Amino acid sequence: MRHFAPLSTAEAGAYGLRDDAASLSVPPGRELVVTKDMMAAGVHFFAEDSAQTIGRKILRANLSDLAAMGATPRAYAMGLALPADMPSNWLEEFAAGLAADQIQFGVTLIGGDTIRAPGALTLSITAFGEVPLGQALLRSTAQVGDDIYVTGTVGDAALGLLAVEGGLAMLSAAERSALVSRYHLPQPRTEMGKQLIGLASAAIDISDGLAADLGHLCAASEVGARIEVDAVPLSPAVRTASAADSKLLAQVLSGGDDYELLITAPPTVAAELGEAAGNADVTLSRIGALHDGTGVTVTGADGENMNFASAGYSHF
Amino acid sequence: MRHFAPLSTAEAGAYGLRDDAASLSVPPGRELVVTKDMMAAGVHFFAEDSAQTIGRKILRANLSDLAAMGATPRAYAMGLALPADMPSNWLEEFAAGLAADQIQFGVTLIGGDTIRAPGALTLSITAFGEVPLGQALLRSTAQVGDDIYVTGTVGDAALGLLAVEGGLAMLSAAERSALVSRYHLPQPRTEMGKQLIGLASAAIDISDGLAADLGHLCAASEVGARIEVDAVPLSPAVRTASAADSKLLAQVLSGGDDYELLITAPPTVAAELGEAAGNADVTLSRIGALHDGTGVTVTGADGENMNFASAGYSHF
Repeated sequence: MRHFAPLSTAEAGAYGLRDDAASLSVPPGRELVVTKDMMAAGVHFFAEDSAQTIGRKILRANLSDLAAMGATPRAYAMGLALPADMPSNWLEEFAAGLAADQIQFGVTLIGGDTIRAPGALTLSITAFGEVPLGQALLRSTAQVGDDIYVTGTVGDAALGLLAVEGGLAMLSAAERSALVSRYHLPQPRTEMGKQLIGLASAAIDISDGLAADLGHLCAASEVGARIEVDAVPLSPAVRTASAADSKLLAQVLSGGDDYELLITAPPTVAAELGEAAGNADVTLSRIGALHDGTGVTVTGADGENMNFASAGYSHF
Repeated sequence: MRHFAPLSTAEAGAYGLRDDAASLSVPPGRELVVTKDMMAAGVHFFAEDSAQTIGRKILRANLSDLAAMGATPRAYAMGLALPADMPSNWLEEFAAGLAADQIQFGVTLIGGDTIRAPGALTLSITAFGEVPLGQALLRSTAQVGDDIYVTGTVGDAALGLLAVEGGLAMLSAAERSALVSRYHLPQPRTEMGKQLIGLASAAIDISDGLAADLGHLCAASEVGARIEVDAVPLSPAVRTASAADSKLLAQVLSGGDDYELLITAPPTVAAELGEAAGNADVTLSRIGALHDGTGVTVTGADGENMNFASAGYSHF
C-alpha cells in the first residue's frame, strides 16, 4: 500500500487506492479496452528474476494486448500474491519497476489487492486502454488479399530463454545478453498500436509464437496465410544463431513471448502503414499475404513449403 | 476456455473471449467503477471447498465492493492459477457456480487468463460496475451528525468460520450450517447499493469487520463514530451463541467477511433509506451516529464504553 499508493496519483478516480473501488470515466466517442494476464514464478518468469523486471514483464504483456487492439494505454489494476519469504526490499524494487514503466507507457495504477501466497509468487494485471468507439482492432476482420506485416524482430525472446538456460554457445556474450533482455523485458508496440486504427484490417500480438498467432488470426478471420521465411525480420543475434544451427529457425517461428504486432492490411494502405511505423519508431516488415483458404503456409528460401514439428508454443 | 466462453455471450465486446482484449463502452452520463480482489486456497478459502462456491465467493466479494460504491454490476474479468492436480470436473463445476451468479447479479465474464499454478489455487477477479458520472459513493464523504446504518446481520461469517473449524457446540447443527453458508457464500448487497446514490453520504462494505471498516470510514471522512452494541443486528444463531459465550461478541463486532454495507446518511433521508431497503428486500438497522472527533466508540448494554482486544480483522 505504502509502495503502491504513489503509483496512483495521476488518476483522481483511483482515490489514492484508499476506497473500495476506482472510478473510470471515458470521454464521449471513446470506449475502454480491457485485458487481463496472470503470471506465476516458475512458469512465466524465474522467482530469482529482478523484482523490477517481474512487474514490468506482466504489465508489458498486457500493454501488448492493448496495442493489438489499437488502444491507447491508460490504467491498470494489479493483484499480487506474495510468498512469506520475500526479501524486505522486494516490494520497493517491484514498485520502482512499475513506476518507470508508468512514465514510459503513460499508465496509472488504479487499484488492486495484495495477498499472502501459500505457493509461488503470482501476479495478475488488468489493463485499460481507450479506442474510438467501435473501432477496436480485432483478429477476426482480416480479408483475403491483405498483406501480412510484423513489427520489430521475431524469435529473440524464444532464443533468449535458451540463452537463460545456458544454450547458444555459438553467440557472443553480448549477443546472448541482447536476447535475454528481450525475454525478460518485452517492448510492447504501444505507439504503433494506436496508429493502426483506420489502417489495419486486423491485428494480434505475438505471445504464443509467430506461426501460432498468425494461425489464430487466420482461424478467426476464416482466411489462409502464406508467409516467406526470408521475409521474417530477424535480429543480428538470431540470424547468427540460426545460421549456425538451422534447427533454431523452427524455434524462431514458433517460440513465444516476442510481443511484436502481427498486422494485416489491404495493399492500398501500404505507404500509410510505413509512415505510421516511422512515426512510431518501429521497423515494419511485410512477410506475406492472406488468401482464400485455411491455415498458415511458410515458404522456405528454396521455394518449398516448410513443416514445423510444433504448430505453436504453449506455457503448459 | 470451453467452460468460460459460454459465460461471455451477454457482452458483445467480450468477442467470445477469443480476441486479445474486450471492448467496454459506457453510456453517456455514466462511468465505470472498477475493483479487484485476489484470493488463494489456504488463506481465503479451503482448497477442498466446493468448486462452485470458490468462484462465487471471490465474485461476490468484488460485487460487494461495487455495491459499496453505489454501482450497478455489469461485467468481470478473471485470472485463474490452477494447480496440476485438480479433479477433472473441477472447471466445469467452477464455471457452473459462476454461471448461476451471473444470472443472479446481472454480470458477464468479459475476459481473463488461466495459467498453471506451481502453488495453491489462486484467483483474481476485476469487476466492473456503472454509476452516474461523478456520483460513486466514497468512504471519505461522511459528515458529522450523519446516522450510521448496517444492512442484514453482522458476525455470521466470523462465527461461521468458527463452526467450520469445529467450534460453537452450543448451537444446533442447523444454526451452525446457517453460519457456515454465510462464511462460504456472502450475499453482496447489490440492490441496496444501487439505491444509495443520492441518499447515502458515504459507504463501505464490511470485509475486515464492523469495527475496523467503520474505523476506515471515520479515518477517511475525518469524523468519529459512536455505535450502540444493542443496536447491532444479529442473526438468531449469532444471538444464541453470544448469549451462551459473551466473549464471542468481540468476534462478532471485529470479525470479517460479512460483506454487509455500512452506510452513513443525514437524518433527513431516514425515511427514504428505509424505503430503499424495502425495495432492495434487505433489513437496515441504525446502529449509531457520527460526531466531531476520531475513532469508533462502542457503547455496551450497560451504557459503558466497550474495549476490544483487536481493533479489526486481517487476513494476514
